[in-house]
Amino acid sequence: MIAIAKPIKQVAIVAGTHGNELTGIYLIKKFERFPHTIQRKTFNLKTLLANPKACELGKRYIDRDLNRCFSSKDLTDPTLKSYEEIQAKKIDSLLGPKGNPKVDAIVDLHSTTANMGLTVILTNNHPFNLRLAAYLTTVHPLVKVYRWLSQSELDSPFLRSICELGCTVEVGAIAQGILSATLFEQTEQLIYAILDYLEAYNSGVAIDVPPTLVLYQALELVDYPRNSSGELQAMIHPQLQSRDYTPLNPGDPMFLTFEGETIFYQGRSTVYPVFINESAYYEKSIAMCLTEKQEINWSTEEDKV
Amino acid sequence: MIAIAKPIKQVAIVAGTHGNELTGIYLIKKFERFPHTIQRKTFNLKTLLANPKACELGKRYIDRDLNRCFSSKDLTDPTLKSYEEIQAKKIDSLLGPKGNPKVDAIVDLHSTTANMGLTVILTNNHPFNLRLAAYLTTVHPLVKVYRWLSQSELDSPFLRSICELGCTVEVGAIAQGILSATLFEQTEQLIYAILDYLEAYNSGVAIDVPPTLVLYQALELVDYPRNSSGELQAMIHPQLQSRDYTPLNPGDPMFLTFEGETIFYQGRSTVYPVFINESAYYEKSIAMCLTEKQEINWSTEEDKV
Repeated sequence: MIAIAKPIKQVAIVAGTHGNELTGIYLIKKFERFPHTIQRKTFNLKTLLANPKACELGKRYIDRDLNRCFSSKDLTDPTLKSYEEIQAKKIDSLLGPKGNPKVDAIVDLHSTTANMGLTVILTNNHPFNLRLAAYLTTVHPLVKVYRWLSQSELDSPFLRSICELGCTVEVGAIAQGILSATLFEQTEQLIYAILDYLEAYNSGVAIDVPPTLVLYQALELVDYPRNSSGELQAMIHPQLQSRDYTPLNPGDPMFLTFEGETIFYQGRSTVYPVFINESAYYEKSIAMCLTEKQEINWSTEEDKV
Repeated sequence: MIAIAKPIKQVAIVAGTHGNELTGIYLIKKFERFPHTIQRKTFNLKTLLANPKACELGKRYIDRDLNRCFSSKDLTDPTLKSYEEIQAKKIDSLLGPKGNPKVDAIVDLHSTTANMGLTVILTNNHPFNLRLAAYLTTVHPLVKVYRWLSQSELDSPFLRSICELGCTVEVGAIAQGILSATLFEQTEQLIYAILDYLEAYNSGVAIDVPPTLVLYQALELVDYPRNSSGELQAMIHPQLQSRDYTPLNPGDPMFLTFEGETIFYQGRSTVYPVFINESAYYEKSIAMCLTEKQEINWSTEEDKV
């Protein structure tokens, strides 16, 4: 059992941060209809559809990506008044305020058109989160752990950053606006595993957590090849498509131009791309995120970074 | 060579009828950059992005599904003034007017989240179109022919119905808002095969077309199970997901409720579902379209229906 200041008393499961990611949205609807499925004895649980207007319209967002509105700077900027900027402030009031939150842990549910399986995203190095992630890699072979570190939690624009503990769950590949029964059930089981873990943690019940953890540390965002007007010039190469979390070696095919020319990876070392061909990232100029595969000891990791 | 009143002199390749179906949109951009790829000697070719505003925003449509705006009634109704209704009238002026069109054939490019491979959609029984479809089944093993008949061409709401000849191309599975290099190239080759066929037809060159054709005739649209408020109660069953064009027998699993209960197909005969889990059809209350698999003789089919 690792040291932590206080037990987990309040947990929030959030979905619909992006209104066209139906897996999480319909899980929340199920949980609200059958609250016993998510009730545990040692903590209270709140469910939240974060962007109701976008959910209703089946869009990612109305004015601005809600999951980029949670930096402390933006949350405290009174001039930001778009729908999502206001919604972020409302959610920060409900679950936060960021830095001194009412909830002890947040699980935020997302889906992606990239072939990310059941990805657990960590956005800080808290040993509690690392240990949770290490545990989750044992519950399903599709679970992978991806880590994206901001300069500080204050800078982090993600909803999850309202509090220190918890994780984002990113499942795929799935198109926006559809449900996959298989992915729905896998995600549901992953959430139950998280809740059971928190329950065992609070209760002091021993859980078998491997001492090390394989995680994929974000290194660099890579855009599609574009012309001077910003127009796409190439697509993900067929040999890279859907191969999230597999090695990309120097000289491997990366993109294919519309004229059929292969563009090769020019890096110096093997990387592990994720978020390959995520639909919502075309406008963010991201074709994929290159990561480094690391095997870490979760109990000593915090001190190292 | 079958009898037809006149040679094909004007052809239009249309894409972006739905602004988030990138395969066709980027093919049109390629064709416009490299016009020699689509130029043929015996006909003029026009390319068109049908819904530029939706393409720019990466949305299916702005106000109303453009590919449901082309019935003669709607095209001649001066009270219809939404963005797509006006756009449909503009396109009808450019390529039509419907019933007496400037173009002799239209190929309209679409994509779907359903696993439809390279589907050629026919919306009438013109032997020219049936023969073209029969030919296309020989060019790639993924080519399937789906037929959806309206009461009359006048009633048909599809852009393609502006003129009698041509087909809609529906490729998938692919999420909205992304490109797949494999599907892009397969669709490109299919378009070249269509253009080469038209060229050979105009030139009187013999083309080897099989006398019969397997097509999937639309029988019935099936909605998701919903409650009295219209809310989804079930998802496509994992055993049916992605199995477009494969037999669904009475008693086979069809849907899975959010509580894990299987709903079985209750029909009396084997059908072949298509458009299974198409994202844009959730709002149209369509979970799939059941079809009958038919082997027809294209040269005598017109008289039979």
